[in-house]
Amino acid sequence: MAAAAPPPPPSPTPAVISEDLLPTGYNVFSRIRLATIVDVPHIHKLIHQMAVFERLTHLFSATESSLSSTLFPENSPPPFTSFTVFLLEVSQIPFPLIDLNYPNFSPIHKTVNLDLPITDPQAETFRSCGNDAVVAGFVLFFPNYSSFLAKPGFYIEDIFVRECYRRKGFGKMLLSAVAAQAAKMGYGRVEWVVLDWNVNAIKFYEEMGAQIMQEWRVCRLTGDALQAFANINI
Amino acid sequence: MAAAAPPPPPSPTPAVISEDLLPTGYNVFSRIRLATIVDVPHIHKLIHQMAVFERLTHLFSATESSLSSTLFPENSPPPFTSFTVFLLEVSQIPFPLIDLNYPNFSPIHKTVNLDLPITDPQAETFRSCGNDAVVAGFVLFFPNYSSFLAKPGFYIEDIFVRECYRRKGFGKMLLSAVAAQAAKMGYGRVEWVVLDWNVNAIKFYEEMGAQIMQEWRVCRLTGDALQAFANINI
Repeated sequence: MAAAAPPPPPSPTPAVISEDLLPTGYNVFSRIRLATIVDVPHIHKLIHQMAVFERLTHLFSATESSLSSTLFPENSPPPFTSFTVFLLEVSQIPFPLIDLNYPNFSPIHKTVNLDLPITDPQAETFRSCGNDAVVAGFVLFFPNYSSFLAKPGFYIEDIFVRECYRRKGFGKMLLSAVAAQAAKMGYGRVEWVVLDWNVNAIKFYEEMGAQIMQEWRVCRLTGDALQAFANINI
Repeated sequence: MAAAAPPPPPSPTPAVISEDLLPTGYNVFSRIRLATIVDVPHIHKLIHQMAVFERLTHLFSATESSLSSTLFPENSPPPFTSFTVFLLEVSQIPFPLIDLNYPNFSPIHKTVNLDLPITDPQAETFRSCGNDAVVAGFVLFFPNYSSFLAKPGFYIEDIFVRECYRRKGFGKMLLSAVAAQAAKMGYGRVEWVVLDWNVNAIKFYEEMGAQIMQEWRVCRLTGDALQAFANINI
């Protein structure tokens, strides 16, 4: 998660610039759009990078095939009614304003001015949008429900920005895109979890107005324990 | 949540017995079935009782109307693909084996033998199933998603058993019904939250094989903070 750290101070030595992503005057064009099944290879790589970052690769078993069938099944429900992925793309040229509008959502465009150009050693791997852009991050979310409010909300399962794009406001932009969608749909809450030792992230979330529910603990039943408990009514 | 406390010792004085719910030989017949829109008045009262139990009535704003439109909208998606409610009913006579089967789910029946009969002062209020049964509890859950597993799971938002039915295994029965559905659908996990001071519940969950994720904290963005944060990309 890209936290609200200040940008690094200007360096007297120019950063090494990827020949494939040279921003014009350090302006970067960014776009948040709904992912589709053709984005699965990128989503798979992003989730794997997130597992590496969280030192949880031993828990990672997703494949492109399993992501495709669960995130984009045949007869997919409309966006936002089930598992939904927003992709963050960046480009050195403006994004075309074309055919990505859904009844409920239009892509979000933002021009970000940077002190230094971005060096992206994996630009080739994450090429997108007719090769003019790269995928820089994603957020995966789905509806949850508050019975006290009798309203749906959104639960954010993952939010991830690739390393070279962090500390530039992109994480905030992704989070805000989900909040905006929740507000637009009249939903009551946006929720997610954070690790208690991640003090920078917690500070960032508190500054943006989120409550940290200190007394709650997440319980998880999985694997053999799930199977065993599933059989007790039989 | 009905935890795994032992049943009370037999009393020399017979308990006061509700004239409307006199179990035959202290056997109680129970059933877990999918709720429908006609159950909303019961669901509303159960959620309110849960808010009273949790001392959170100041956060309770659900109405029968708002529950109907959000839990059972027109063109409702199939059970288990969105917000889903299982109702627990108990009766002194066996439940009829009729027309409540969905493609994906058949009601769960269990006969519970009790040391003492149950006194239900609210039996009239919670009448169900042609007046032969009463609604004793519910569980509200919906799909969540693990990107590491690339599998859906279930998240349990609420589980509640009315006071006079607690400590008889009904909470465990409701929880197991969700676990069984998850296992049947090939889902990876069942998750929920617990308050960290509720040591009896935590002990119960650990004994059934659940992990308590001690490092995670739930973050919530709601109300004015949600609206404000929703606007930062504009």
